[in-house]
Amino acid sequence: MIVDALQCSHFDREIFERLRAGGVTCVTATLGFWEDTLESLDAIGRYRDLVRENEDLVLIATTADDIREAAATDRTAIVLGYQNSCALAGRIRYAELFADLGVRVIQLTYNTQNEVGGSCYEPEDSGLTRYGRELVRELNRVGILVDLSHVGERTSREAIEASEKPVAFTHANPSALAPHARNKSDELLRALAERGGMIGLAVYRNISGDYADSPDRWCEMVAHAVEVCGIDHVGIGTDLSEKGTAADIEWMRRGRWTRTAGYGANMSADQPLKAPPLEWFENNADFPLIAEALERKGFGTAEIEAIMGGNWVRLYGEVFPPAGRRATELSAAGQP
Amino acid sequence: MIVDALQCSHFDREIFERLRAGGVTCVTATLGFWEDTLESLDAIGRYRDLVRENEDLVLIATTADDIREAAATDRTAIVLGYQNSCALAGRIRYAELFADLGVRVIQLTYNTQNEVGGSCYEPEDSGLTRYGRELVRELNRVGILVDLSHVGERTSREAIEASEKPVAFTHANPSALAPHARNKSDELLRALAERGGMIGLAVYRNISGDYADSPDRWCEMVAHAVEVCGIDHVGIGTDLSEKGTAADIEWMRRGRWTRTAGYGANMSADQPLKAPPLEWFENNADFPLIAEALERKGFGTAEIEAIMGGNWVRLYGEVFPPAGRRATELSAAGQP
Repeated sequence: MIVDALQCSHFDREIFERLRAGGVTCVTATLGFWEDTLESLDAIGRYRDLVRENEDLVLIATTADDIREAAATDRTAIVLGYQNSCALAGRIRYAELFADLGVRVIQLTYNTQNEVGGSCYEPEDSGLTRYGRELVRELNRVGILVDLSHVGERTSREAIEASEKPVAFTHANPSALAPHARNKSDELLRALAERGGMIGLAVYRNISGDYADSPDRWCEMVAHAVEVCGIDHVGIGTDLSEKGTAADIEWMRRGRWTRTAGYGANMSADQPLKAPPLEWFENNADFPLIAEALERKGFGTAEIEAIMGGNWVRLYGEVFPPAGRRATELSAAGQP
Repeated sequence: MIVDALQCSHFDREIFERLRAGGVTCVTATLGFWEDTLESLDAIGRYRDLVRENEDLVLIATTADDIREAAATDRTAIVLGYQNSCALAGRIRYAELFADLGVRVIQLTYNTQNEVGGSCYEPEDSGLTRYGRELVRELNRVGILVDLSHVGERTSREAIEASEKPVAFTHANPSALAPHARNKSDELLRALAERGGMIGLAVYRNISGDYADSPDRWCEMVAHAVEVCGIDHVGIGTDLSEKGTAADIEWMRRGRWTRTAGYGANMSADQPLKAPPLEWFENNADFPLIAEALERKGFGTAEIEAIMGGNWVRLYGEVFPPAGRRATELSAAGQP
């Protein structure tokens, strides 16, 4: 099974077909970055309709069993996630409501500090706030994975310690190899893994440095992460943006909080757009190249299976609620 | 089984205990009148917590089977409803999301015209709008009962015709006996019943006229409704507001749409508050008085059971989704 723990792609039937071509069993879709509650609910509605219209290719997964069902029926399981906690509007009770609607991944902060804690781009990281501690406990309770990819180092460390369930950097790289504000120190990776958490390595050019050059170079990051975290704690989180537009990048970079700043993984003013995809990893059909490179790197079959997807399915099984129903089935029972 | 199809009470443990004293198996709670989406979600969160804290007395019902389970375990089933469709923010996809969160009753309009249609207090009733027709179809699909109690006559007639599932006046009286803008003509009641719908008669003083004077007088309204609609189409919808405050009435009357008007069932300026409860029906312990009066009126045992609650349970079974989970259970699966 191939699992991609984070994409920003504009999913449509064409991409769903490419996911099948790449043999991808599960992908977490980003339903929002800065969107408010209503816009975030809108996104759930859109994804439900999109999945219903393409149910020969995809399903919405709310449990690890749903992912196994996707594998068994040759489809791709879509996990619903947000790259920010602002959909919750600071309301602790909304975590349960969004969980009921099928959301399974929430990143505590995107690129700016919020009421939960500090972002990796803030000059000063407040650490996990009191509301942040309440929220981590509630996300644990309702079965939503805490994502710390864009979260500041101190807030991440405190969230790892506060969480009773494993947490994740769904899309980040080791800063020991690829120094970048978005990437994670070996110390942090060790703390994550000690509490059962996982990192998903990204093929996003801006946070990959020279390791973007080839599948074999990229797999050096995998090898490093495995050395630091252990084989059970490493997976893939491409951060792929198939069919992303300039307007999307503008929205990611600026949201509604600035007229000028261009923060994000690419912080220089002369590079306004997201970097182009890697030459060897252009789209969702390219996952097999990673498995091949891992084999050349000397990983065994079981290790490759764990890294390519098995680890994420295990983690999801530990974090997601055991007895969910797929989101598109929830209310469709009465439909003729 | 006793079923009350509409209350505005401020439910708490004391009222839950009174519901048990009155033998009430099911009551629809009003979670909002003018509240926007976020406030409406807040209300769901509050009710979930309230029900979890009192699960020895109540449960949230999303299916007719849940109501039967409440009866079997000597508890009261709470059905979640709104007296307006504004929680949906004009978004057709939200109907499914709110259904997933456990909402089972939505009134198309409260006391003013909205994007769905006309209210009973508007001088001109637009009829059911194009969005209104879409919404009725979607509420049918997702298993939410269409409530027309405060809806204008023309919009009500068109909604009855448009709906593929039975609809309801959950809390209203026959205008042939108690003339009032809120009450329903025999013609409309006949149309409702012909499509399988139901009326719940209210013990609310302002729309009951002289029939408020005693249980026996009040049951004359029941007898009239049965004569017009047939025995299968009449039930109770008290409109009771236990622990309601002056601020609640102000909110119901004015919402955010007026600084001055005092519209609502009590439209005169010298009566700013909701009328006091009937002398013979003060609170949720008084339901048995209705059953006794129905017997004096000559109704048989099966007829009394139908009116007191059996009809609503049948209707809910026809309208609610067959395979729901109780709202408080939806995400609590992962809870230790």
